[in-house]
Amino acid sequence: MAKIGFVGLGNMGGPMASNLLSAGHELKVFDIVPELVDKCEQQGATPVAGAKETVKDVDVFISMLPASVHVESLYVGEEGILIEIDPRTLVIDCSTIAPSSAKKVSEAAAEKGIVMLDAPVSGGVGGAVGGTLTFIVGGSDAGLKEARPILANMGKNIFHAGGPGAGQVAKICNNMLLSVLMTGTAEALQLGVDNGLDPAVLSEIMRKSSGGNWALEAYNPYPGVMDGVPAGNNYEGGFLVDLMIKDLGLAMEAALQTGAATPMGSLARNLYIAHRGNGFGRKDFSSIQKMFLEKTN
Amino acid sequence: MAKIGFVGLGNMGGPMASNLLSAGHELKVFDIVPELVDKCEQQGATPVAGAKETVKDVDVFISMLPASVHVESLYVGEEGILIEIDPRTLVIDCSTIAPSSAKKVSEAAAEKGIVMLDAPVSGGVGGAVGGTLTFIVGGSDAGLKEARPILANMGKNIFHAGGPGAGQVAKICNNMLLSVLMTGTAEALQLGVDNGLDPAVLSEIMRKSSGGNWALEAYNPYPGVMDGVPAGNNYEGGFLVDLMIKDLGLAMEAALQTGAATPMGSLARNLYIAHRGNGFGRKDFSSIQKMFLEKTN
Amino acid sequence: MAKIGFVGLGNMGGPMASNLLSAGHELKVFDIVPELVDKCEQQGATPVAGAKETVKDVDVFISMLPASVHVESLYVGEEGILIEIDPRTLVIDCSTIAPSSAKKVSEAAAEKGIVMLDAPVSGGVGGAVGGTLTFIVGGSDAGLKEARPILANMGKNIFHAGGPGAGQVAKICNNMLLSVLMTGTAEALQLGVDNGLDPAVLSEIMRKSSGGNWALEAYNPYPGVMDGVPAGNNYEGGFLVDLMIKDLGLAMEAALQTGAATPMGSLARNLYIAHRGNGFGRKDFSSIQKMFLEKTN
Amino acid sequence: MAKIGFVGLGNMGGPMASNLLSAGHELKVFDIVPELVDKCEQQGATPVAGAKETVKDVDVFISMLPASVHVESLYVGEEGILIEIDPRTLVIDCSTIAPSSAKKVSEAAAEKGIVMLDAPVSGGVGGAVGGTLTFIVGGSDAGLKEARPILANMGKNIFHAGGPGAGQVAKICNNMLLSVLMTGTAEALQLGVDNGLDPAVLSEIMRKSSGGNWALEAYNPYPGVMDGVPAGNNYEGGFLVDLMIKDLGLAMEAALQTGAATPMGSLARNLYIAHRGNGFGRKDFSSIQKMFLEKTN
Repeated sequence: MAKIGFVGLGNMGGPMASNLLSAGHELKVFDIVPELVDKCEQQGATPVAGAKETVKDVDVFISMLPASVHVESLYVGEEGILIEIDPRTLVIDCSTIAPSSAKKVSEAAAEKGIVMLDAPVSGGVGGAVGGTLTFIVGGSDAGLKEARPILANMGKNIFHAGGPGAGQVAKICNNMLLSVLMTGTAEALQLGVDNGLDPAVLSEIMRKSSGGNWALEAYNPYPGVMDGVPAGNNYEGGFLVDLMIKDLGLAMEAALQTGAATPMGSLARNLYIAHRGNGFGRKDFSSIQKMFLEKTN
Repeated sequence: MAKIGFVGLGNMGGPMASNLLSAGHELKVFDIVPELVDKCEQQGATPVAGAKETVKDVDVFISMLPASVHVESLYVGEEGILIEIDPRTLVIDCSTIAPSSAKKVSEAAAEKGIVMLDAPVSGGVGGAVGGTLTFIVGGSDAGLKEARPILANMGKNIFHAGGPGAGQVAKICNNMLLSVLMTGTAEALQLGVDNGLDPAVLSEIMRKSSGGNWALEAYNPYPGVMDGVPAGNNYEGGFLVDLMIKDLGLAMEAALQTGAATPMGSLARNLYIAHRGNGFGRKDFSSIQKMFLEKTN
Repeated sequence: MAKIGFVGLGNMGGPMASNLLSAGHELKVFDIVPELVDKCEQQGATPVAGAKETVKDVDVFISMLPASVHVESLYVGEEGILIEIDPRTLVIDCSTIAPSSAKKVSEAAAEKGIVMLDAPVSGGVGGAVGGTLTFIVGGSDAGLKEARPILANMGKNIFHAGGPGAGQVAKICNNMLLSVLMTGTAEALQLGVDNGLDPAVLSEIMRKSSGGNWALEAYNPYPGVMDGVPAGNNYEGGFLVDLMIKDLGLAMEAALQTGAATPMGSLARNLYIAHRGNGFGRKDFSSIQKMFLEKTN
Repeated sequence: MAKIGFVGLGNMGGPMASNLLSAGHELKVFDIVPELVDKCEQQGATPVAGAKETVKDVDVFISMLPASVHVESLYVGEEGILIEIDPRTLVIDCSTIAPSSAKKVSEAAAEKGIVMLDAPVSGGVGGAVGGTLTFIVGGSDAGLKEARPILANMGKNIFHAGGPGAGQVAKICNNMLLSVLMTGTAEALQLGVDNGLDPAVLSEIMRKSSGGNWALEAYNPYPGVMDGVPAGNNYEGGFLVDLMIKDLGLAMEAALQTGAATPMGSLARNLYIAHRGNGFGRKDFSSIQKMFLEKTN
């Protein structure tokens, strides 16, 4: 079992830390919200006074924070912890942030001889709780080899996307594509329904045909077609529109930096912003179906 | 074995008729291009002098024509053949046409007591030759039940989308979604590559994640990632950009008629038209990847 | 003064007929809504029993109907009036319809030796009442020369766009561009405001710069910037979102027929449909500003 | 007459400096390209050894650089010149950069008691040479009052957009709108031409109607319609596609930072990138017309 430092105990980080504790690891934990620390302590973690204390005498350090600014601040800001970390510690950042931020922090770590991985996750709160997250990892083979048993306590799929920052790039590419699939599926279903088709029949036909995609396979956005998905529960839970917009913003930033054209992803982002403007920010992203359902002919 | 009339012996209809002959059916055939009729005759079909002759004394009549105008003209035009068809004949139109045209012709057939199915196909020339087409069928259960053994000689998947015209609706919904998947996949792959990822690694990650879709599964648009697809053969063959634009046009027509919003499909259509304008009309539709590859930063 | 037959006495046609009466012309009028006929009779028009009676013994015949289907039905349907019209009668259709419908009807008229103009208007109900409409005319020079004095009683600008149907084409091109200008102006204003600018100051800068356009000049969509426009009156009145969507549908139809790419116009149409879905169908089209105003950051 | 320091003597900065010399000002100039300095020296400027020397003993300091990174590096980088500038010097940055960069530099200047304006220009090389640029200025009233006589030597229109950074915001809003107007105008003209209209006639109708905008007024993109514009000269000269893409990138950055939706501007950016991919990066931005002209039906 390993000694692990963990910073960021929110909706995602909390259950991830919990799964590490269940697997028998020793955890030193910190979060700026005391209640989150308390909850983790009750599960067996050792609370410490600040981020800097979490890196003392640990084998692995893991962070799970909301955005680039928090990650940069934690590691390389004026009070950055990289300076405190023993170079033998394996550092894993599970936050979803800009690839450029991930590279910046990884490079700063490398300068101090620290092996660092960017390992953003997909699977949402459900995956974090159930220990079924997918990790998309950027960094060295050696680092990932060392990280695998730890990551396996929190998730079931681990992909190696490439060098430092590659995990972030792969995640935002995937989520940009996901936003396009979902929006495209929603409008295709509605076009069919408007022209007299049964959405379940059409879904099944497209799922088995060249329109087949993850939304039709596992996350149908049309109410009543699939059980156990947000569409069947008034779009509660799941992957929030607000978070999809965050990820699409990261994709757009990356596209701006390389001069890439992303017409479909750009349009999806703009549609999701309009959708959020209608009050759907805290609903699942498959609720984009409502943008098409609510038309008046 | 059945007696079958068949009109339209082009790239698709020719091999379909051929497969019916191989299965032991008797065919009366017609096409306005004599060479196509000759070729079919050599395979055992009986050439007749015109469309009207193909419907005499047959159990089943099949048409495979380029567009709505041809289908309407064949069946209900001034010289329309519906008037010639024995009501006991099962009529199957395999053309991809506007749902409104399909309904119009089906209704005219029904008025004469004729059972008619719209049964557009997917699978392209390869599927037609190999007898592995997918049929997406609109019409009555009874009609489809009767048609199944015949269709099974030409294809391997048969979907029942609903009543008259529903086959056309389902096909254009699927193909609109397909255009969105393909374009979205192409831009996501390029965004990843521009940011340093290996397209094969990124493809594999997204295929197994929430970005998974048919393009990543079976038809990767990025050169060098997948064997045996048009991307590996300079985008030759496959499903032509010109045909995708035709199908997107049918989807847009249907959307206009019902007042549906199809933002992603509309954008895909406009991108495909710009792509055609660059000389890609006769290339496979996965060549949309080139729109993103050829950028200059 | 002329003897004029007039069919279609709604929001637009009613005041147009009224202005013709005020100018001293004799009118025979018909509408399927008796109240509209009564109102016109009170202003001096002669009500007749049906459309066919309006064309008897007149110099000019004018129609103002909602859509292509009504115009085709009036002129060339089973009970079409073309057969009743004296070839010396000048026929002017002021409806906004599909160019293909306008051409079809004009050709049918020409076959009977009748000179027909398509003369769709812009300027809305206000322009109809005030006699300040703009006519965009398709048809022969000779026809337009004869029509000018009549049109001048109802409007102040008369443009000759070309041959039969050209008036319709020019109008839908203009209105498609207008939808793009308005949406683009709304989002540019909001981008500025979100970044700290005063919308009036930004409007004035862009108006005098290369962003200058009719929306900034005469119809600013941002509340509080301009007096006497719908933005200052909760987007009441003006040119309804529903009507803009109708015109964009005609533009999309024309684009489909010629295979044209209209990426900006297509996007504008889809945004307007989503906007209508939010309950703005009966508001002025500059209310698209609300799609951008209501965002939550 | 004033003593002026000037850094950045390229296509824009060179002629701007030249006009200041012609107006009788004394200039100390620097550029990293010696030839550009030489050229300016021949016109009467005093070359100095580096940027830091240009700020010694001057009343006004002006910079004209390609991008945010250069401006930040000049003023606040490790060798930043703000530390060298006498607080009585008026500082004017005429570069087009990110509003966030402009604010950052202005704030750093303010901390040292220096009055700084952001004053990006429009009007291109022609405007720079002819002294007819438009300045869109952010900063204090007092600063702008002092700057006016100097700016008037280089341009003819001066707009005050607001506080620090507002000049940049207003410019990118304007140019984003411009890209939308131009693209929308190009596709509307092509839709008309495809449907049989004369582009000059249609341009004139829309110019006088609600489709009226700067492109139709002064910069018609359709070849042969207007004299003296890039469309009449194979789209040579003018405002390069590469530069429009740069400005659209700044607009997208600003939109990402505030969470704004910019669907039309995003689409225009993506279309311009595809257009650049076809080899049009060094052509005038009205060449987007070619994207629509080159279609094959």
